[in-house]
Amino acid sequence: MTAEIIDGRAVAQQVREEVAKGVAELVAAGGTAPGLATVLIGDDPASEVYVRSKRRACVAAGMVDLHRHLPGDVPQHEAAALLDELAADPAVSGILLQLPTPGHLDAEALLTRIPAEKDVDGLTTANAGLLAQGRPGLRPCTPSGVIELLDRHGVPLSGAHAVVIGRSVLVGKPMAQLLLERNATVTICHSRTRDLAAECRRADVLVVAAGIPSLVGADAVKPGATVIDVGIHRGEHGLTGDVQYDAVAEVAGTITPVPGGVGPMTIAMLLANTLTAARVQQSTGRR
Amino acid sequence: MTAEIIDGRAVAQQVREEVAKGVAELVAAGGTAPGLATVLIGDDPASEVYVRSKRRACVAAGMVDLHRHLPGDVPQHEAAALLDELAADPAVSGILLQLPTPGHLDAEALLTRIPAEKDVDGLTTANAGLLAQGRPGLRPCTPSGVIELLDRHGVPLSGAHAVVIGRSVLVGKPMAQLLLERNATVTICHSRTRDLAAECRRADVLVVAAGIPSLVGADAVKPGATVIDVGIHRGEHGLTGDVQYDAVAEVAGTITPVPGGVGPMTIAMLLANTLTAARVQQSTGRR
Repeated sequence: MTAEIIDGRAVAQQVREEVAKGVAELVAAGGTAPGLATVLIGDDPASEVYVRSKRRACVAAGMVDLHRHLPGDVPQHEAAALLDELAADPAVSGILLQLPTPGHLDAEALLTRIPAEKDVDGLTTANAGLLAQGRPGLRPCTPSGVIELLDRHGVPLSGAHAVVIGRSVLVGKPMAQLLLERNATVTICHSRTRDLAAECRRADVLVVAAGIPSLVGADAVKPGATVIDVGIHRGEHGLTGDVQYDAVAEVAGTITPVPGGVGPMTIAMLLANTLTAARVQQSTGRR
Repeated sequence: MTAEIIDGRAVAQQVREEVAKGVAELVAAGGTAPGLATVLIGDDPASEVYVRSKRRACVAAGMVDLHRHLPGDVPQHEAAALLDELAADPAVSGILLQLPTPGHLDAEALLTRIPAEKDVDGLTTANAGLLAQGRPGLRPCTPSGVIELLDRHGVPLSGAHAVVIGRSVLVGKPMAQLLLERNATVTICHSRTRDLAAECRRADVLVVAAGIPSLVGADAVKPGATVIDVGIHRGEHGLTGDVQYDAVAEVAGTITPVPGGVGPMTIAMLLANTLTAARVQQSTGRR
């Protein structure tokens, strides 16, 4: 058996085109193009690369790039003041604070200054609460990108047994909530789980977000299951994930590769969130 | 095999005595006795009974009963104004809005007026977000009462497979988060779960909060498992739970009865939350 491969780049491109269309429609209907304020503090080269990709994608979708860059030694109160300014600015639909921030800053305290309705990363406690209570809100980009991949490949979720490996605030926990919202029976595994392979073999849908290279082998996959690999690791032979791709692809029914699977979805969902935020803000403003 | 029975009344009594001791210590250290503001809107007899029990327990623990009663036809803005007044009042450590509120009121909108630090029911979106992100906050009373029962009976949770039936905002979802926080591998089941009995048979700890009388039989329980019954139903033969008690008690290692299991814990944990809230507020005030 050889698994169907989910092409994350293609799905991400599709989402980005739909967002661009949505932006054009919003503007044609008399609205304003959504503005995304990426906030980068310091000069970490990896963060610079990420932020640049986000800004480019934002412009390509017809949105306004409202990037702000603060020096790495900025005091907490100045970073907080910038976020407050962006929070109050009606041109700013979404605010993304690029993490990690320099060590002297309290990133959690900074995140709380982002209003829930502009939190396009979906990482604030307010949005985590809305998700936990099943109420409308902005969802974290990576797990909602996984749902998008599953939906566009027609993977049934209602009644399916979904297993999530990993319980991070960024991916694992919101992933479990989103799968539950879609009526899957959800099991959350982690480092303390006793027989991980046995838990995983019960999954119709297996989402691996453990951050451990090659953690999941073919013995942990039910024949025909859908395997989504959120891991990304730079090694001697290029990028690899949390899943032993070649072996698992022989057993799984559907699988995401690394790179080119979940990765490209994160920015696509950031754009989708920014459009959603702008729509909500502009419809509220018009009332 | 006959299961050990968890005596919820005894554990609740123990918790209430500990809270009373904590209140006395707080006052002895120069603090103020915690004040609990129960808010009852209208004259629903069942709600009146619940609120009376809470007020009595509060006084018995040495706390101040700051009960408020509004007429059943109170307009939304007046109910909101009362909650705002209680939120601002330093004598009020905790606010509990008794649910359900009369149909013409928007209960969700009222709940958002309770500040997270006075939300002793742990039901606001803010506290749900703190729980989801594993940050300190007030936890919902019933699921934290279940954790207390498990802890005081020495039921190991780390690495255990816990199965929760039910995904309500009040019990099922926060229960899963609390079990995950204690390093259990957690599965959440619900009405769409395909083979419920098979899922349950894998549980070392089974928490049933489905609201369906006698849903869980002996065939759904692993020999020796711990079974916690959150259900409560009034029938011809008195109160029963979601679990077929007599049959399951022959298979389980440990079980809670209905009544006298989880039920008494809810008020005990409300008192514990009110003490916690008062301690946090008074230590912050003193800084």
